[in-house]
Amino acid sequence: MASLETVGLVVKPHLKDITAYLANLAAWLGARGCRVIGEPSAAHLLPPTVTVVPSEMLAAQSNLVIVIGGDGTMIYAARLLGSRDVPVLGVNYGYLGYLTEYTPETVYTALERVFAGTFRTDVRMKLEATVERLGVPRLTAQAVNDCVITKSMLARLVPIECRIGGQFVSIFHADGLIIATPTGSTAYSLSAGGPIVHPAMQAIVLTPICPHTLTNRPLVVPDTSEIELRLTTERGPFNVEDVFLTFDGQTGCAVEPEDRVVIRKSASVLTLIEPEGKDYFQLLRDKLKWGNG
Amino acid sequence: MASLETVGLVVKPHLKDITAYLANLAAWLGARGCRVIGEPSAAHLLPPTVTVVPSEMLAAQSNLVIVIGGDGTMIYAARLLGSRDVPVLGVNYGYLGYLTEYTPETVYTALERVFAGTFRTDVRMKLEATVERLGVPRLTAQAVNDCVITKSMLARLVPIECRIGGQFVSIFHADGLIIATPTGSTAYSLSAGGPIVHPAMQAIVLTPICPHTLTNRPLVVPDTSEIELRLTTERGPFNVEDVFLTFDGQTGCAVEPEDRVVIRKSASVLTLIEPEGKDYFQLLRDKLKWGNG
Amino acid sequence: MASLETVGLVVKPHLKDITAYLANLAAWLGARGCRVIGEPSAAHLLPPTVTVVPSEMLAAQSNLVIVIGGDGTMIYAARLLGSRDVPVLGVNYGYLGYLTEYTPETVYTALERVFAGTFRTDVRMKLEATVERLGVPRLTAQAVNDCVITKSMLARLVPIECRIGGQFVSIFHADGLIIATPTGSTAYSLSAGGPIVHPAMQAIVLTPICPHTLTNRPLVVPDTSEIELRLTTERGPFNVEDVFLTFDGQTGCAVEPEDRVVIRKSASVLTLIEPEGKDYFQLLRDKLKWGNG
Amino acid sequence: MASLETVGLVVKPHLKDITAYLANLAAWLGARGCRVIGEPSAAHLLPPTVTVVPSEMLAAQSNLVIVIGGDGTMIYAARLLGSRDVPVLGVNYGYLGYLTEYTPETVYTALERVFAGTFRTDVRMKLEATVERLGVPRLTAQAVNDCVITKSMLARLVPIECRIGGQFVSIFHADGLIIATPTGSTAYSLSAGGPIVHPAMQAIVLTPICPHTLTNRPLVVPDTSEIELRLTTERGPFNVEDVFLTFDGQTGCAVEPEDRVVIRKSASVLTLIEPEGKDYFQLLRDKLKWGNG
Repeated sequence: MASLETVGLVVKPHLKDITAYLANLAAWLGARGCRVIGEPSAAHLLPPTVTVVPSEMLAAQSNLVIVIGGDGTMIYAARLLGSRDVPVLGVNYGYLGYLTEYTPETVYTALERVFAGTFRTDVRMKLEATVERLGVPRLTAQAVNDCVITKSMLARLVPIECRIGGQFVSIFHADGLIIATPTGSTAYSLSAGGPIVHPAMQAIVLTPICPHTLTNRPLVVPDTSEIELRLTTERGPFNVEDVFLTFDGQTGCAVEPEDRVVIRKSASVLTLIEPEGKDYFQLLRDKLKWGNG
Repeated sequence: MASLETVGLVVKPHLKDITAYLANLAAWLGARGCRVIGEPSAAHLLPPTVTVVPSEMLAAQSNLVIVIGGDGTMIYAARLLGSRDVPVLGVNYGYLGYLTEYTPETVYTALERVFAGTFRTDVRMKLEATVERLGVPRLTAQAVNDCVITKSMLARLVPIECRIGGQFVSIFHADGLIIATPTGSTAYSLSAGGPIVHPAMQAIVLTPICPHTLTNRPLVVPDTSEIELRLTTERGPFNVEDVFLTFDGQTGCAVEPEDRVVIRKSASVLTLIEPEGKDYFQLLRDKLKWGNG
Repeated sequence: MASLETVGLVVKPHLKDITAYLANLAAWLGARGCRVIGEPSAAHLLPPTVTVVPSEMLAAQSNLVIVIGGDGTMIYAARLLGSRDVPVLGVNYGYLGYLTEYTPETVYTALERVFAGTFRTDVRMKLEATVERLGVPRLTAQAVNDCVITKSMLARLVPIECRIGGQFVSIFHADGLIIATPTGSTAYSLSAGGPIVHPAMQAIVLTPICPHTLTNRPLVVPDTSEIELRLTTERGPFNVEDVFLTFDGQTGCAVEPEDRVVIRKSASVLTLIEPEGKDYFQLLRDKLKWGNG
Repeated sequence: MASLETVGLVVKPHLKDITAYLANLAAWLGARGCRVIGEPSAAHLLPPTVTVVPSEMLAAQSNLVIVIGGDGTMIYAARLLGSRDVPVLGVNYGYLGYLTEYTPETVYTALERVFAGTFRTDVRMKLEATVERLGVPRLTAQAVNDCVITKSMLARLVPIECRIGGQFVSIFHADGLIIATPTGSTAYSLSAGGPIVHPAMQAIVLTPICPHTLTNRPLVVPDTSEIELRLTTERGPFNVEDVFLTFDGQTGCAVEPEDRVVIRKSASVLTLIEPEGKDYFQLLRDKLKWGNG
């Protein structure tokens, strides 16, 4: 790694019994000449040696980001970094995550490899969704796991017309539709019946949520696919606030009848520091309790 | 049938090309001495011979209700009737429904059997849900198909603690939980992965929606079971409006952290006029496109 | 219990480190005046105080059967008992079973309740299948979990015509069809996508195995249903040995094109000694690793 | 196309009312200077102008193969061709297939494009499976759809140990395991709960059949993956003939405890003549009855 001048700490604000650990970690980094910065939301957990800066500044200045929390915190950090390609190292504090594979202890060995420049990266694709209203882009957002279009609880069913690469696929009569990356295939998509897609795949998964048409099954398409979603009014009109598009389950916006949602592979990526001897299947076995072996 | 003095028509308001049919039906009933009444919402479709009365009056005065529309209209009529056990005859106008099995043509033969008193009924169980806040019943509602507890789109996951007959079942980490009657087993529950339960069964189906725990499978329990649901705050607090309880997907209310939802078999039923030679499996084959045979 | 003169031990023959336990158990029973008998297949594990008798004699003479092994051993014991309604007590030696709920230690407390006559029973329905060839019953067998009709590995698909109560249901184009009791709903049927059916239900579950028609979903019907299966030759002829009917996965017979398989609730039952404070949902949580709570 | 000197006809032998069509097709091809050859198994359907040759000779000499039947016939033709990369044109006679997309009428337009050299090909990956016994390759076979390892009907469950790229994945306790190509994802794998994988994907799908471990979900991995399967004897020994490996459901061999099955992408492909305006999603909608368009 050319430079580790500035290391950003992104810490889940609700973590308990973490201050001593963070103090040690910051001291360890400081002893190696790093400036360590953190966010206001976790300021109450950080030692005095960590400079608290606005979140945007952390995203703009860090040469390495250490995420401490769970997958949700990693997703948040990825959104903060936006299109800036900074290596990220995820430490799970509590229980194992798909993206936060280091324990508080193993992170030091990993950091030493980072300082030595002998680490490997695990580059994950992201999705980019654009919502167009009457042809005008209104919002663009990125997702590490998934973009999900869903109806609200009391709304009538709103059929979702889906096209891929300009070709009509289907009108999904469903609670919603999940468009997931391979990384996201083990998140919400899995709960909705989607397959596990190896993170090395160049793929996008479309998983309908509770489809009325029982033959509407999860669909895996190349990551070069442009996916276009529109709401149809074939079953009558619907109200603003009836349908929502969410990004990684963390942010979102309402979708209206005139809107066109276009989802494609993002030009930017999420770069993880890969654990030495990384074993994706071990992670699956642990997370999914496959048991023996 | 002791008396068919008053026949109520419950008509889906958005139906097209229905006025001639309704005029014929009303004339046919009038010629047999019936007073025919209808609702304000469908007044624009009804002939002058049909008296438009408030919906509650229709529910209170009808000795027979003819539902014209689809399953949604039937569900609406059942809610209107509440605990009043009036035979209902469902006519599908458009496409076949699970509960609206007559076509506009076959309804006359059925009515003749009703007038002759030679019909059979198909009695369907309903569910009753009570929401208690701090021990005080706050709301009670009935459902023909299902009671569904779900989280809103951007809400954090709210674990649902479920007890049956006082015994702890599980804490469901899911988008929601469907509590369905056998009638409702072919509605939303089926989309969520639930089994088809024959309407003659005395059963209640619990189907989790997109469960995080992949081994949380649909569960069929006796209709004598009292099902109790509570929201846990183990993953942190949640907001009012984050979780909703809906009845047959048509009405609902917010559920709050202190609330206790109790769902059991209703004391009242929905009584359908059974088609002659009723064939439940033919209905399944038609609705589910099982094809050949 | 009127009399516990003779207690039969049915022991899984491959168990290890079990001889001391069996000697203790036999001594405990002997001290209470019981004659203890066992089968030849487990003779090498039994102490000298246990009389080894032919399996049929054990089934005919025991007033109580203690099963030591897993659910497979319990199923075997039930088959051995046939239509004789003898209470059975299942001890799991190794890992927890749905039907072998006692541990080697807790069995003594249960036995004391049996001797005191203060026990409750958990009566499980069984299925009875009859294979008729050209109208002549050729074979009748019982099942605690399920009757399964399947094709052999290299056989062409053999469509299975299913009728319930004389009504045509569907022609299943599938690898096979599972007809399960509520007890069997957590066995093979669950693996094939069937629901969990509470053992107190009066129900039969039909679960297709890998159906080609994706809308062929598991079906729950009343336990009064007579289920009739025939193989169709619509896709061409098939060979003897191509299709098999198995009972609890342990025994079976070939099914031929002229055959008619009729499955209904058995007149006999399996009577388990119910553990005190029996908690079915706790069992589900343990077996299915539902985790928390 | 450089040369269409010899055209092979592979015809499903059981087709009815096909002789006139075949005579027309052969005459059309003969008029364009082609030598038309056929197989002995369909000799009774072929006109005298078609030369009947041994199947191997047809495979070796054809410059184009026209398959007339369904997907099963196409799979058979692909096996016949082995590693020889000859363009194939599939005509469905009866009902639409995933691989036999032409109707008897549309095939002529396609052939004209082939003669004009203005056609596009749709190249499908195949799998190659090698069974090694004690380190010695014993059998190698190819599959267009899938390689499936399954247990026989009455066999005890035989756990399948799976490794990918040398990494341990899981021990599958299941009826079997399907290793499918994208082409095969809409065949058996779909029935077993697998996802639909677009044929343009470079992917291999692993779908367990009725897994006991409910969290063993379908898995999509890169087509560069080497998949290794072994049978474990952790649950006791098993017999020869208990476990079988099948290729496209048409051929197969027994697998024994010492065996190692290695499955990887085949070096050879199946080259289809792509229909003009090919629309994969239209095919899905038609085959899966997704309905509205």
